[in-house]
Amino acid sequence: MHGSRTLRLTLEYDGTDFYGWQVQPDKRTVQGEVERAIADVTREKIRIHGASRTDAGVHALGQVASFATSSKLETKDLKRALNAVLAEDVSVVGCDEAAPGFHARFDARGKHYRYRILNREERAPLERRTALHVRDTLDVAAMNEGAQAVLGEHDFRGFETETSVRYKELEEKGRSTENASVRRVTAARVASVAPGILAVDVAGTGFLYNMVRTLVGTLLQVGRGKRPASDVSDIVQGRARALAGPTSPPQGLCLVRVFYGEEAVTPA
Amino acid sequence: MHGSRTLRLTLEYDGTDFYGWQVQPDKRTVQGEVERAIADVTREKIRIHGASRTDAGVHALGQVASFATSSKLETKDLKRALNAVLAEDVSVVGCDEAAPGFHARFDARGKHYRYRILNREERAPLERRTALHVRDTLDVAAMNEGAQAVLGEHDFRGFETETSVRYKELEEKGRSTENASVRRVTAARVASVAPGILAVDVAGTGFLYNMVRTLVGTLLQVGRGKRPASDVSDIVQGRARALAGPTSPPQGLCLVRVFYGEEAVTPA
Repeated sequence: MHGSRTLRLTLEYDGTDFYGWQVQPDKRTVQGEVERAIADVTREKIRIHGASRTDAGVHALGQVASFATSSKLETKDLKRALNAVLAEDVSVVGCDEAAPGFHARFDARGKHYRYRILNREERAPLERRTALHVRDTLDVAAMNEGAQAVLGEHDFRGFETETSVRYKELEEKGRSTENASVRRVTAARVASVAPGILAVDVAGTGFLYNMVRTLVGTLLQVGRGKRPASDVSDIVQGRARALAGPTSPPQGLCLVRVFYGEEAVTPA
Repeated sequence: MHGSRTLRLTLEYDGTDFYGWQVQPDKRTVQGEVERAIADVTREKIRIHGASRTDAGVHALGQVASFATSSKLETKDLKRALNAVLAEDVSVVGCDEAAPGFHARFDARGKHYRYRILNREERAPLERRTALHVRDTLDVAAMNEGAQAVLGEHDFRGFETETSVRYKELEEKGRSTENASVRRVTAARVASVAPGILAVDVAGTGFLYNMVRTLVGTLLQVGRGKRPASDVSDIVQGRARALAGPTSPPQGLCLVRVFYGEEAVTPA
């Protein structure tokens, strides 16, 4: 029986060679690798809870995971021991005591995601794992205008994929689906952050499945002039996934930070 | 017979999976891959000349290569065609007409190299291919002070490795080795460029084999307090490789830019 202490890990990872966060049989996942490292170090076979179930190929600079343990190791020694056994594409950058019962996902107050776009004709080898390559000229001002439409509290089911599974689960539990897709976005902006590199920064109290990537896919249609910036607002109002653009590929996306307690949910 | 036109390519590459720039039998090299791409596109089996013979693992954002060709393709079409056949870890970002006889190495007036150091306790997965990880606390001011000692024109043989081969070649050709290691460094600085990331930027009219990496290895000893900043000046004066620090690993190094003609040899 584990659980005399609750710990909080902050994780960085290069998502390229992972099948995402969540444990899957016979697949290399971040959760699976970290749980295996904890077992190596503490001899405890425990489950960890991640704030965000990032998809295959998605990166993190500030994923947070919680777990209960009976280990007596000091946090700094545990951090060092975990990093010694983890592969080079995942790193524990923080290991801290948490209040009993702390849960990285349920207690999260918000998240900041960044989606990076290489916007030029030629490929950039040193950016290929962490940016989507878009050759078309993009109207950044129009993209940024479109992004403003997601600010505030809205029902974002128009940007969600695979809603049916989640809604069915809710219904089976006898819970309402009425507000199940309501989230509050506190920051959304599109800007040039380096020569040839655009970043879409989005922060909010929560995100639906594929919401950021579908928003980016839609904003890219706006940037290419294929649809007006006002369409983003229409998608939010229309609440139908069919209206939105395609889900953009995972490699551009990074979970930058998870917010807890009284922290302001906003990009640094 | 090739040669009715001289072209200049600007190349970016992720050096991780290359055995460096220079063609070697049965090894994957940047020069070899680009020459093969040119052969695929133009049907010409030609030799290209790179400004810098970067080592295995060293990256480039601005390598320059020149070659003579009989191809009638327009530069923008050639660039696109080369990128279509090149692997994802090398990219032609510029393809321009050059003056007849232009030679990327012999005509280079200077180069800018950047060496990136991740200076914190924990590994950073997203930096692991492009930065050296140093856990020790570094005295950046002392490193920067040490770096100043290389500014100006000096005989840098104290920072050169494998001098004997090069000197023997020169002697066999009946040429003097007296000034063979004299170079002029126009800029040298160590600074924080992102959270946890230090950069050593060095620009100069030319660099000896391993000179930047040996300078960085020496500056790291200064940063760790293992030797005083004044040792850098002593190594320059002493002209003996044994005095300098170790050659630092390749993954932190990037050839940022090559300078030609009247361009000022200085980091942007």
